[in-house]
Amino acid sequence: MSTIRAAIVGYGNLGKSVEKIIGMQPDMELVGIFSRRTELDTEAPVFPVDEIADYADRVDVLYLCLGSATDIPELAPQYARFANTVDTYDNHRDVPRHRQAMDEVARKAGNVALVSTGWDPGMFSLNRTLAEAVLPNAQQHSFWGPGLSQGHSDAVRRVAGVKKGVQYTLPSEAALELARKGEAGDLSGKQAHVRQCWIVADEADQARIEHDIRTMADYFVGFETEVHFIDEATFDREHSGMPHGGHVVTTGDTGGFNHTIEYILKLDRNPDFTAAVQVAYGRAAHRLKAAGQSGAFTVLEVAPYLISPTPLDELIARDV
Amino acid sequence: MSTIRAAIVGYGNLGKSVEKIIGMQPDMELVGIFSRRTELDTEAPVFPVDEIADYADRVDVLYLCLGSATDIPELAPQYARFANTVDTYDNHRDVPRHRQAMDEVARKAGNVALVSTGWDPGMFSLNRTLAEAVLPNAQQHSFWGPGLSQGHSDAVRRVAGVKKGVQYTLPSEAALELARKGEAGDLSGKQAHVRQCWIVADEADQARIEHDIRTMADYFVGFETEVHFIDEATFDREHSGMPHGGHVVTTGDTGGFNHTIEYILKLDRNPDFTAAVQVAYGRAAHRLKAAGQSGAFTVLEVAPYLISPTPLDELIARDV
Repeated sequence: MSTIRAAIVGYGNLGKSVEKIIGMQPDMELVGIFSRRTELDTEAPVFPVDEIADYADRVDVLYLCLGSATDIPELAPQYARFANTVDTYDNHRDVPRHRQAMDEVARKAGNVALVSTGWDPGMFSLNRTLAEAVLPNAQQHSFWGPGLSQGHSDAVRRVAGVKKGVQYTLPSEAALELARKGEAGDLSGKQAHVRQCWIVADEADQARIEHDIRTMADYFVGFETEVHFIDEATFDREHSGMPHGGHVVTTGDTGGFNHTIEYILKLDRNPDFTAAVQVAYGRAAHRLKAAGQSGAFTVLEVAPYLISPTPLDELIARDV
Repeated sequence: MSTIRAAIVGYGNLGKSVEKIIGMQPDMELVGIFSRRTELDTEAPVFPVDEIADYADRVDVLYLCLGSATDIPELAPQYARFANTVDTYDNHRDVPRHRQAMDEVARKAGNVALVSTGWDPGMFSLNRTLAEAVLPNAQQHSFWGPGLSQGHSDAVRRVAGVKKGVQYTLPSEAALELARKGEAGDLSGKQAHVRQCWIVADEADQARIEHDIRTMADYFVGFETEVHFIDEATFDREHSGMPHGGHVVTTGDTGGFNHTIEYILKLDRNPDFTAAVQVAYGRAAHRLKAAGQSGAFTVLEVAPYLISPTPLDELIARDV
């Protein structure tokens, strides 16, 4: 198997995790990191992001480690012209539009764009589709947390006046138990969770910031949302970890017989796990292009063996 | 979406469950059941299995509901000549050979053969491959039960002299906890489970039956195996249910941060769930053939959206 030449665009938490995870792969090498900044705290080569076209023939997969609130919608399609891309775009409602935008560019360029990888969207999406396809009369609920939401924290931090901010999502234990029994009915994700924001901001801005958060479409509208303002020292002491996790619970009924599928994630460091999924799907992007495919793909459209470094024959002998 | 015309070969527990599950699908109709017997307790049309060639142009997907011990290896390839097939062949070690045998026949005939669907092999295989591909430094353990194993019960019942027989597999709780902490090391499935057989047989045959079971390669050799002989009344009273379930536990480490993926099944009726997976993969067989593909596929080689009755656009909007 030839080595996959990987590069990164963006060097925040996700980009740093992707750099680390690439270093743990048996079949990848890191070409470098593309950034607007010239000085990054890394031993990897750093290239100016506006010269990315000059490096296109040296890169098999470009990991887009950019925020979903504005960077991905604005910038991702232009990168799909130069190489296969993998992103973690997490605005669920907007995924069809994003996939379409990436598909047009990637198809023209003969590249593959893997969109909305990570864990949700990503591994949770996969499990929702698989479990619902398999179980007759399926009832399905996703639960997130307790933990930090990267996408929502990113959105909160983009509100004017927010100096530091995080958002935690907490599942309702009662709702989780109902779901396992197939009795959660049409309880929505919004009803089963609380969204909790911890913000550092000047007092003069706080009322307007709270209003801006509560009215953010797709992110907070319709959720029970708590907005707490705290001082910076408290923030640094209590809100620097990045644990997360969640459950996808699906029940089905085959004529009086109940069946439950539960998929559980417990993650010590959310960006590391998101990056681990993103990195694995880069392998699929590379292989799909090598097989003559182009355009945008979600995780639902990728045969599972394509993300594994292990050859298919070995997987069949070992895992099936 | 056009209706998928489905047929069944074999009418034991699995065949009956497949018949029921097909009736719950929005996009399938049951053409009939092929059997050696002419009288079956069903309202579906029954056709002689040796006349299956005459019905080939009326069937999109043939569900092979046959035992793995001898029927699938001997009979499955001949059916792949006539239509797309889906089987639940569960002798893990022999899956590569079986896939190869089905591939040769299906490819020549222009059909698609989905091999070794169900839950293990099947959904558990998928989860093993996905979780191991995603998590760096992955440690992985599969646990089965507590519950009835169809494949092993089938194997036990084929031992000469066995009048009735079942096999339960029980996971070790201590091993499960170790796996979740990433501390199960190279504990094998054989060490983490007990295989328990309950058999009705004449006393004269019992010693030889126990020997035949304990020495059955791939099924019992190397496992802690219990063989209990009981009378028929006790058997009928205590061993007629078919619950099952299990866990795939995978832990990973991203440089001091731990991550756990756990996939759990709790099944009231094992053949119903196996059938539900098998039926869903029939949809993939039909679609792969319609897209010009042929040959044998394991679940690892099938893009997840292909098993869902929901169109891809809707899945992307809803699940991703």
